[in-house]
Amino acid sequence: MIPSRKKVYVEGSRPDIQVPFAEVELSGGEPPVRLYDTSGPGSDPEEGLPQLRQKWIEERGIDEKCNTQLHYAKKGMITPEMEFVAIREGLQPEFVRDEIAAGRAILPNNINHPESEPMIIGKNFLVKINANIGTSAVSDSIADEVEKLTWATQWGGDTVMDLSTGKHIHATREHIIRNSAVPIGTVPLYQALEKVNGDPTKLNWEVYRETIIEQAEQGVDYMTVHAGVLLSYVPLAANRVTGIVSRGGSIMAAWCLAHHEESFLYTHYRELCEIFAKYDIAFSLGDGLRPGSIADANDEAQFAELRTLGELTKIAWEYDVQVMVEGPGHVPMHKIKENVDLQQEICQEAPFYTLGPLTTDVAPAYDHITSAIGAAMIGWFGTAMLCYVTPKEHLGLPNRDDVKEGVIAYKIAAHAADLAKGHPKAQEWDDALSKARFEFRWEDQFNLSLDPQRAREYHDETLPAEPAKTAHFCSMCGPKFCSMKISQELKEYAAQGMAEKSEEFREAGGKVYLPVVEKK
Amino acid sequence: MIPSRKKVYVEGSRPDIQVPFAEVELSGGEPPVRLYDTSGPGSDPEEGLPQLRQKWIEERGIDEKCNTQLHYAKKGMITPEMEFVAIREGLQPEFVRDEIAAGRAILPNNINHPESEPMIIGKNFLVKINANIGTSAVSDSIADEVEKLTWATQWGGDTVMDLSTGKHIHATREHIIRNSAVPIGTVPLYQALEKVNGDPTKLNWEVYRETIIEQAEQGVDYMTVHAGVLLSYVPLAANRVTGIVSRGGSIMAAWCLAHHEESFLYTHYRELCEIFAKYDIAFSLGDGLRPGSIADANDEAQFAELRTLGELTKIAWEYDVQVMVEGPGHVPMHKIKENVDLQQEICQEAPFYTLGPLTTDVAPAYDHITSAIGAAMIGWFGTAMLCYVTPKEHLGLPNRDDVKEGVIAYKIAAHAADLAKGHPKAQEWDDALSKARFEFRWEDQFNLSLDPQRAREYHDETLPAEPAKTAHFCSMCGPKFCSMKISQELKEYAAQGMAEKSEEFREAGGKVYLPVVEKK
Repeated sequence: MIPSRKKVYVEGSRPDIQVPFAEVELSGGEPPVRLYDTSGPGSDPEEGLPQLRQKWIEERGIDEKCNTQLHYAKKGMITPEMEFVAIREGLQPEFVRDEIAAGRAILPNNINHPESEPMIIGKNFLVKINANIGTSAVSDSIADEVEKLTWATQWGGDTVMDLSTGKHIHATREHIIRNSAVPIGTVPLYQALEKVNGDPTKLNWEVYRETIIEQAEQGVDYMTVHAGVLLSYVPLAANRVTGIVSRGGSIMAAWCLAHHEESFLYTHYRELCEIFAKYDIAFSLGDGLRPGSIADANDEAQFAELRTLGELTKIAWEYDVQVMVEGPGHVPMHKIKENVDLQQEICQEAPFYTLGPLTTDVAPAYDHITSAIGAAMIGWFGTAMLCYVTPKEHLGLPNRDDVKEGVIAYKIAAHAADLAKGHPKAQEWDDALSKARFEFRWEDQFNLSLDPQRAREYHDETLPAEPAKTAHFCSMCGPKFCSMKISQELKEYAAQGMAEKSEEFREAGGKVYLPVVEKK
Repeated sequence: MIPSRKKVYVEGSRPDIQVPFAEVELSGGEPPVRLYDTSGPGSDPEEGLPQLRQKWIEERGIDEKCNTQLHYAKKGMITPEMEFVAIREGLQPEFVRDEIAAGRAILPNNINHPESEPMIIGKNFLVKINANIGTSAVSDSIADEVEKLTWATQWGGDTVMDLSTGKHIHATREHIIRNSAVPIGTVPLYQALEKVNGDPTKLNWEVYRETIIEQAEQGVDYMTVHAGVLLSYVPLAANRVTGIVSRGGSIMAAWCLAHHEESFLYTHYRELCEIFAKYDIAFSLGDGLRPGSIADANDEAQFAELRTLGELTKIAWEYDVQVMVEGPGHVPMHKIKENVDLQQEICQEAPFYTLGPLTTDVAPAYDHITSAIGAAMIGWFGTAMLCYVTPKEHLGLPNRDDVKEGVIAYKIAAHAADLAKGHPKAQEWDDALSKARFEFRWEDQFNLSLDPQRAREYHDETLPAEPAKTAHFCSMCGPKFCSMKISQELKEYAAQGMAEKSEEFREAGGKVYLPVVEKK
């Protein structure tokens, strides 16, 4: 939890439904503001987190075939998970249930991950963000990754993907899941590849299936499956500027080429659905042929795969398995909307989950910004979850600071999208902060911000003295021109007529509010 | 000039037209890439910069009434300045002339600022960015500001506004102009206010006029004039969440209230036009009633002023004075396009020059990002120049690092807009970088990027060894899975048919290109 915020819980229809919020207390007689809270109860390296959902799962009883929220929703049930989500989003439980039943939203929560606080991914809810973490061949500390998980969710990560490769994949994931109050996603293909010593041509359905079940048992909530990379699509990527840039996509392309066979993910897809239904794992249908550069955006390779993802979405729904669909990547602004519109049409409004997109390739080291632009826009257009990009994208592995920069940039994008979509609770937050700013309630302004500590530090860099925190000016215009008078003057003026007020104003010394806010 | 780039000059139709470009040499037999270069010849604290345009100005002869590029353009002349700009933008001189003649673009260059390298601001050209610098009551070193000027233009600032307040305004500006190869803008009202000891009610036309002429003589290229804040509009801002946040706007509002008279900027506007025509100063018609928060976006106060700015635009054109029009500010994404569309309609396509806009208020300390989102979009929609916002916006005065962060975020926004607008030269840059990335030409990738040094540092943080610069892998996937083979394989595969190739591929050991580029 960010310091200066207080965790409060709202109780649902039963005492074990306790929905967390981050409350910001304000001065000046303003009511406190309650913000969506992803931080969870922290981590416990020894015991793991409390099993919040265990009782709900047991009450329902575990079916041998299907235990998905989609299944319950279709039957008209409102589960405690759905009610939890409804309170969290400020909506009616029936609405949550209907959106899940229609496939327009998913509530990812493996029955073996009872530690998770339910959340929902769908275009009619708050836009969510995902943070990627994970060990690699050159960096493999489990403790570091659990720390990154806690860190990412403190700043607002709604889900976390564990993309570990290298050694200790199983153990890393175990520690992450047991300490995670947010849903955990994976790309099981990475671990399967480790099991065949890194040779993609040695992959097969059996190894993959075994990996899926291993991860399902641990409690992975959603899995990226690159089942749309068909043999016949691979040549479509041949003449691209940047070929295939998705790891999963290139692994499957290599397999298809080597065997000259259709992808085993595609041919065994119905078996996957059966497994996913049992654990309530959600599909995140991977876009293995997504563009890796501006030049390759919206090409035939990408859209051919998307059409297959549409097919696969419908098949998953036959099994009552929850599905979202992944999207690009690198897309210039004028080609972004087409991505959402096509995905929503082809995949019948299944939630879209995009990586950025980056709106230009010329700024490595700043791709959290190049992609926050695209992410905000695609979120507005209807994307349900945004996968973050850190400043290290394309260059190296993100450290703790990079994770924070990525999460904050994406919280900005997601919230800007919520505002543009007109989510009723979104603008309350902005209005509270704007009002605090205008009224010189500096501490309130800091505390309401996405990063109170940095906002305070930046203010203090120019005006460190404590009285400046209550001063009716800031360093941009200095003390000489700043007062709050004009706002009051303006209001009275409008109310009482202009002529007499102008006289009064001049007699009072003509003091004027010069803005604290902007430089010109 | 950013290290690793080389300044080259392209000669025009006469030997004294020398247009600078930043050339990036590439390896692997790739041709060098030439980028737009704003860095100028550096600074010379003793002598100032060479007077590049002096001869052109003298050749034309200085007219007693009008010396504007708009005047020449309307007469059908192509000045050396226009030809310079045409080469810089990769367009025909006739096109440049026609856009200026139509008022759709401005070429700001005071005849007393012969040091400037001509540049153009208009929607049919590359999107430009402005960086604000300037002393204030709490920070008043002239040397620091000249240093910020050089720094801002090194990273890509197309114009710089000197917004100094406090002491030494005249001297600061003199040093800035004499060392600036980019056009310099000001808000003369700030200096006028200092002359009346900071009391806005004491302002009058005479003091303002004297200030304008003082700055005109020094060579200021464009001036923000808040002539659209009319007496009758002031009450429209009374019930806003954040009132009037423009400094210029609030000064003029205070004056109007105190005197209960129409603004002297409005009533003396034609006299201003005469002065501007003589020096070729461009108007930047200030938006004194721009919104200061999401809540206040696109309201009646804002649009009432805009309609007046439309009137003032037409009057300026009567005098052959160049004009651009300023815009907001704080605007949620779904309200951005209306701003451009209205401004373009009301002001008959005069260039739009916006501050951001910020797309949410909840992220002080990250407003370079909240506003880069809005800036990219509004640039795409037709805004000609974007005024940068630094991470310190609303909190404090930007230091050197903040200036850089602001400029880079805005170069990203402007370039993303150029791509979306389909500017022919924009995508060449992306393609060159994407290709370098795909071919593991790490040094080329760094050198082509907006910030080569930071890109290199981030790469080296995980893989510091020199051989990693030529390695066909990066730290994201590690060495085990990386090879360039698959790209070649794919191309051959597509060309030669799939069956026989799949066999060959498997026999060759099935080595596969796994992406260096993205994490999943």
